[in-house]
Amino acid sequence: MDHRTGPLIVLEPSRLAGTRYGNRPTMKDVAARAGVGLKTVSRVVNGEPGVTPETERRVQDAIEALGFRRNDSARVLRKGRTASIGLVLEDLADPFYGPLSRAVEEVARAHGALLINGSSAEDPEREQELVLALCARRVDGLVIIPAGDDHRYLEPELRAGVATVFVDRPAGRIDADVVLSDNHGGARDGVAHLIAHGHRRIGFIGDMPRIHTAAERLRGYRAAMEDAGIPVAEAWMSLGATDPLRVRRAAEEMLSGPSPVTAIFAGNNRVTVTVIRVLAEQRRQVAFVGFDDIELADLLQPGVTVVAQDAAALGRTAVERLFRQLDGSLIAPEKIELPTRLITRGSGELPPAD
Amino acid sequence: MDHRTGPLIVLEPSRLAGTRYGNRPTMKDVAARAGVGLKTVSRVVNGEPGVTPETERRVQDAIEALGFRRNDSARVLRKGRTASIGLVLEDLADPFYGPLSRAVEEVARAHGALLINGSSAEDPEREQELVLALCARRVDGLVIIPAGDDHRYLEPELRAGVATVFVDRPAGRIDADVVLSDNHGGARDGVAHLIAHGHRRIGFIGDMPRIHTAAERLRGYRAAMEDAGIPVAEAWMSLGATDPLRVRRAAEEMLSGPSPVTAIFAGNNRVTVTVIRVLAEQRRQVAFVGFDDIELADLLQPGVTVVAQDAAALGRTAVERLFRQLDGSLIAPEKIELPTRLITRGSGELPPAD
Repeated sequence: MDHRTGPLIVLEPSRLAGTRYGNRPTMKDVAARAGVGLKTVSRVVNGEPGVTPETERRVQDAIEALGFRRNDSARVLRKGRTASIGLVLEDLADPFYGPLSRAVEEVARAHGALLINGSSAEDPEREQELVLALCARRVDGLVIIPAGDDHRYLEPELRAGVATVFVDRPAGRIDADVVLSDNHGGARDGVAHLIAHGHRRIGFIGDMPRIHTAAERLRGYRAAMEDAGIPVAEAWMSLGATDPLRVRRAAEEMLSGPSPVTAIFAGNNRVTVTVIRVLAEQRRQVAFVGFDDIELADLLQPGVTVVAQDAAALGRTAVERLFRQLDGSLIAPEKIELPTRLITRGSGELPPAD
Repeated sequence: MDHRTGPLIVLEPSRLAGTRYGNRPTMKDVAARAGVGLKTVSRVVNGEPGVTPETERRVQDAIEALGFRRNDSARVLRKGRTASIGLVLEDLADPFYGPLSRAVEEVARAHGALLINGSSAEDPEREQELVLALCARRVDGLVIIPAGDDHRYLEPELRAGVATVFVDRPAGRIDADVVLSDNHGGARDGVAHLIAHGHRRIGFIGDMPRIHTAAERLRGYRAAMEDAGIPVAEAWMSLGATDPLRVRRAAEEMLSGPSPVTAIFAGNNRVTVTVIRVLAEQRRQVAFVGFDDIELADLLQPGVTVVAQDAAALGRTAVERLFRQLDGSLIAPEKIELPTRLITRGSGELPPAD
């Protein structure tokens, strides 16, 4: 069925079936087995009039034989409530999540579903608490930017038919759909760009190493350096919290001493806004490339060269996949990786100062 | 009771009582009438052990006599779910709401409550749909940045005991708590600052006039001009959508013709990011002050002078008031206005070009 034109109807395999994706039957299977049209199945499932008792019995028999039952969301819908999608963010104040959230909301809206958000504030316990609270409030599906790395707590919900797509970072210890940016490739491109402009001593300042994107971007940095045959000094890499104090100290350390870095690669937009502030205070020019685009990057002097992710495309791709799970048209979890784009504006094209 | 130290327990007046704030009894009233401690009332309300049947009967009698019943949220809590607060935003991608949302989340968290967000996308119907969906999902209270100007649809929810505080913009046609910035005074200060630097032909570009903050800031602009005895030309004022195309056209029109404006005041941060882009393309210098601070405003050339709101304080004040409603310690709705702050960085101190 097409959610764009019809009401949202969610069928799920029986809890006894155990698996979520394996041979998950659809409304079409019910219709085929009962020998009726999809519309008739929909009428029976939604308790709408216009079906003879005989046909209704046939449909009910098919539903039973196939081991289906309506899930709670569908029951909620029958009571006239709106279908809803939960979005679990990592930080409400990070501008990266603005376009991502809005894209998820727009697609949800196009499917007639309401979007409910929450934030884990980068705390795995809060993520779990929030996800389970949203499930308890009968969301039909979840788009999750995970803070934790063990999502086995979700297994009962998945079996109960809650659709789930992870975005920006993968799920841990469960098999689930995930939509990522090419973090490794993007960082490698950005660092290779600095190397192409003559830099060899290049610093990397990133988020906490337990965060998937931070680790992948560091891998990309290392790969670019290795590709160019440049040995990496430990002092050039700093991973940790992205608060201004920590990032400032890291940048200032790399820029001091007898052989300072001549370029810095920032692991995300929160790092970027602090590093470019530190660089503006330096006497010598230091080249810079940041992962994530930032607002007004083109108006700064020099313009800020970035490896841009398409945050809206991440959100849109994730939630579209979620609705395909809900209509039963997906078979197995997939990993989808979206490309990044190097945008040159000046800061990444500066030559080494020495 | 203090939510910081105890579980969240919500009592509400009977629907028959009709009003929400008038003489709303608290748990203390129940305890006083029954002649027991608060803890005992809490135990009875939560169905916890440790109360003799006789004491329980006394507490139940007091609850009945005072016309209370537990609300649905409390029943949800008894089942072991987390208390929750809903936050209804206007635009998920507007960075102004980032610190506001995070502040609401932090206070909610300190009270042991979960924060659930949603966005109206500046559409009154979506606002209503979202608010009612959150109520149906049993949030204990709502912080609302309203898109609409008629909130009578909330009256049954208010009577049913859902706590509500409006923030950034007032409620329409109902009596409700509201926390605002001093939009009128802030805009007047910003425009007076431009006048003090010699400007007389000053443009105002703002959001749609039906939005409270846009209308108030325009009033502030007019007041500053009137205070200085400067007649305002219609061509200097442009209110409408804040998308880049509309704002760009408005700015370019004011800057062309035989007597162009020498300064522009922007009604919010979305307008600011487009106007400073237009100004960067101009041959002559044009002074600028924007309402709302923006990230990296200090690193641009010239630095961007702004009238800053404290978005985090707006959120914090609103949600703290919400929890005071929930613990029954508020009597009547109030309007709270927070001051703004002029931050001079260069763009607002440029003299007129002619």
